[in-house]
This record gives sequence, C-alpha cells and structure tokens, in this order.
Amino acid sequence: MQYETKNRSILKAISWRTVATITTAVLVFIFTGQFALALTIGLLEVFAKMGLYFFHERLWQKISFGKKEIPSFVLWFTGLPASGKKALADTVCQQLVQDKLKVERLDSLDVRPLFPETGFSPEEVNRHVKRAGHLCAMLEKNGIIVVASFVSPYRQSRVFARERAANFIEVYMNTTVTACEQRDTKGHYAKARSGEYQNFPGVDIEYEEPVNPEIVIDVDNLTLEESAELIVHYLKKKVIKRD
Amino acid sequence: MQYETKNRSILKAISWRTVATITTAVLVFIFTGQFALALTIGLLEVFAKMGLYFFHERLWQKISFGKKEIPSFVLWFTGLPASGKKALADTVCQQLVQDKLKVERLDSLDVRPLFPETGFSPEEVNRHVKRAGHLCAMLEKNGIIVVASFVSPYRQSRVFARERAANFIEVYMNTTVTACEQRDTKGHYAKARSGEYQNFPGVDIEYEEPVNPEIVIDVDNLTLEESAELIVHYLKKKVIKRD
Repeated sequence: MQYETKNRSILKAISWRTVATITTAVLVFIFTGQFALALTIGLLEVFAKMGLYFFHERLWQKISFGKKEIPSFVLWFTGLPASGKKALADTVCQQLVQDKLKVERLDSLDVRPLFPETGFSPEEVNRHVKRAGHLCAMLEKNGIIVVASFVSPYRQSRVFARERAANFIEVYMNTTVTACEQRDTKGHYAKARSGEYQNFPGVDIEYEEPVNPEIVIDVDNLTLEESAELIVHYLKKKVIKRD
Repeated sequence: MQYETKNRSILKAISWRTVATITTAVLVFIFTGQFALALTIGLLEVFAKMGLYFFHERLWQKISFGKKEIPSFVLWFTGLPASGKKALADTVCQQLVQDKLKVERLDSLDVRPLFPETGFSPEEVNRHVKRAGHLCAMLEKNGIIVVASFVSPYRQSRVFARERAANFIEVYMNTTVTACEQRDTKGHYAKARSGEYQNFPGVDIEYEEPVNPEIVIDVDNLTLEESAELIVHYLKKKVIKRD
C-alpha cells in the first residue's frame, strides 16, 4: 500500500517552480527585453507550462523518493469458542478499511469449507492453523494487513504463525469457559458436553493460553466497541505510523 | 499495485495552471494595474506558488481519479518432474520484477519444507496443491502477481486452483517422460524406477495433461530464453495492460 510523504510534495513543488520561473523569465526577455505584457505572457504560460507540467508529472512517476509503504501486520485473534473473536475482528477490520487501509479478513469459518477434509484432531487443527499462519505471513510480506480469527487452541501452531510473520500482534480473548458457554447461541458447547463433538477446547481438551500476547481483551467487562477502540488505538500508536 | 494514468496528469496540469495563472493576474493587477515588473512578480511567484503547489499536491492525494491498479494474475506452471518448470518460472518472474511489478514466487520446494507432514499420496498431493491454489488466489485478490510452479499432476486440484483465481494462466510444460528422465540431474526418476519413490508422476502414476492450458511450452524444441519470451509476450499482450 502506498502513500506520498510531505517531503515528496515539497521536492515536487521546488522542481516545478524552478522550471516554470525560468520559462517565464526567458519568455519575458524574448518578448520585451524587460518585464511587460503580463497578460500575453500569462496566456503563453497557460500553454507552455501546462505541457511542461504534464511531462514533469510523468517524469516524477519514475522517481521513488518519498514514496512509502504503510507497514503491514498480522492481527491474530485467539480464544475459546464463543469468546467473541469473530465479532471483534470484524469490527476492527471495518475500522481499518474505513481508514483506506488494504486489509484481508481471514476466519476459520471462511477457510474450513474450502478444505472439508480438515478434521478436528489436535494434529489436524495444528496443521490447519499453521497453514493459515503461512497464508497470513505471505499476505503481510506483500503489504497486506491481515485480520485473522481462529480458536487456535494450541501454542505450537500460534508460535509457528508468529514466527512466519514480520509483525505479529496476538489478541487474546480473556474469558472463562462458563461465560463462553452462556454466550454460545449456536449450541456448540452443549454438543461437546453430550459427546457429539470431540476435541472441543474448554470441554474435553485444554485451550492453551498465550504466554505474551500483545493485547489482552477482558471480554466479560468490556463492550465490543470498547474492545475495538482499545485495539485500534494500539495499532495507531505502535504500528500504523505515517511520516 | 498502483500507477497513475496520463489522464490524471493532464487533469493535474489543468488544475494547477488555473490556480497559478489567476494568482499571477491578481498579483500583476495589485502591483501596477498593468503588466510590469516581471522579475518582482517572478520572485513573488516563487514563494506564493510554491506554497500553493504544495497544498495542491496534498489535495490531489485525496482524489482517486486516474489512479489504477495493474491487473494481477496467477501464472501456474505444471508439468512432469524435471520438465523445467522451476527454471522457466524463475526467469519469467525476474523479468516481471525488472518491470517493477509486484510479484510473489511460489514453488513446491518453498512450501513443502514448512509442512513436512505433507506426503505424496494422491490425496495428500491434491490437498497440497489445493492449499497452494488458495494461497495464490488470496495473493492475486490483493493485487499481487503470483508465479507458481508445482508438478500438480492431477487435474482436480489444478481446476480447484483455477476456480479460486480471477485470472488464471496455466502454462503446460509439454515434453515426454523419456526427455525428462534424461534431463533429471537429481536422480529422482532413478529412485522412482527402483521403487524408492512411490506415486511418482510419469513412472508409477499418470501425469494428467491440462485440457485447455493458456500457454503450451514445447520444452524439447525451445530454449529457456525463447520460452520465457513467449510467456512475457503473452502476458504483455493479454494481461498487463496500462492505459
């Protein structure tokens, strides 16, 4: 993603004015030897300088000075099922898009249907999360901001995702199994309790808490808006910097 | 990836000249009521118009007219082991990078070491190639050109990769098993013949030829340079168009 720095605009202003003023002086000298007939000269300027301005612009397209990329990053939401990852990630993503940033949104629910053979055993989940981490890193490397939300219950595959990325920001949805179970409108916890689902984080397998997440969301005591504001504030202060 | 069209530069030239000429006329009128003292006015112009030019530039940063993206695409090389995919894909990729295009290079050899659990059974290869196709499509969607080279012996997963992408260009390395076996400096075919490798395309499993590839490379009768030129020519004519 590209934007132009003020330095670039300053240099363009200097280079253009140099060309334009020399042109004016030469024109005035040719016509009178003095300084006169500004209207005539003004009219000549309209045509002569407009052409020069055009070629000046085309030349500047080839100069990279002062063109910069906004740093990209991977914003990775992790937490128990029904801890509110998806809603929060969607909200943050919308705010970044409103800021005209180039963002890709990745959710487990988007990726799994493409690869229906992916199971829920720890090995399969680790593999699924690692592949997602690889995808995030490839997008990030190419200047795309990635907002990803995966339960990603195992530390091993989250560490893999972190190591692949240049700028990994882990958001941990800090809450309890009890609170998630109460929030769960889809009945996933009930199915896990009844044995219909196996390997369900928080029920029959452990969700491994992140060791040093960049951001911890106190899910049970913050509204969605407050949580989103906290994250966007962090990003603007620490990551999304413009000269 | 962004570039600016000539229309954008023309409109910038018109808008700037409007501002600058009105400024000149007003200055001349204030100073003399006539047309005089071009040097004085010229000097004033240097300062006044340079500031105006600067703010004019900053304003134009907010206008999207005439800013365009170069279309991205997935260039997918498929063919038997040792058919020359990697060398040709590398050469084409280098030429695109020289043209200042944003390119990501994906090769099976880059991806497999990250996921050592990926095997060589038809199911595993199909899964591996589908995941690669998904990755290509995500990059392409975000404006990145992808140059991918995978044996990808099964039609099913190549079709999957094609369907995920907006602009899929399949390059088929057309050659024979015998010719590949002669070119094979790494001894992969020998290992497949001796039974050390199973599921080896061209030896114990069939390589399924593409049905309608966009580009067919006659590997045994073209040099690397000729093949690369053929592909780059196709891309410039059909895909990489600028206004």
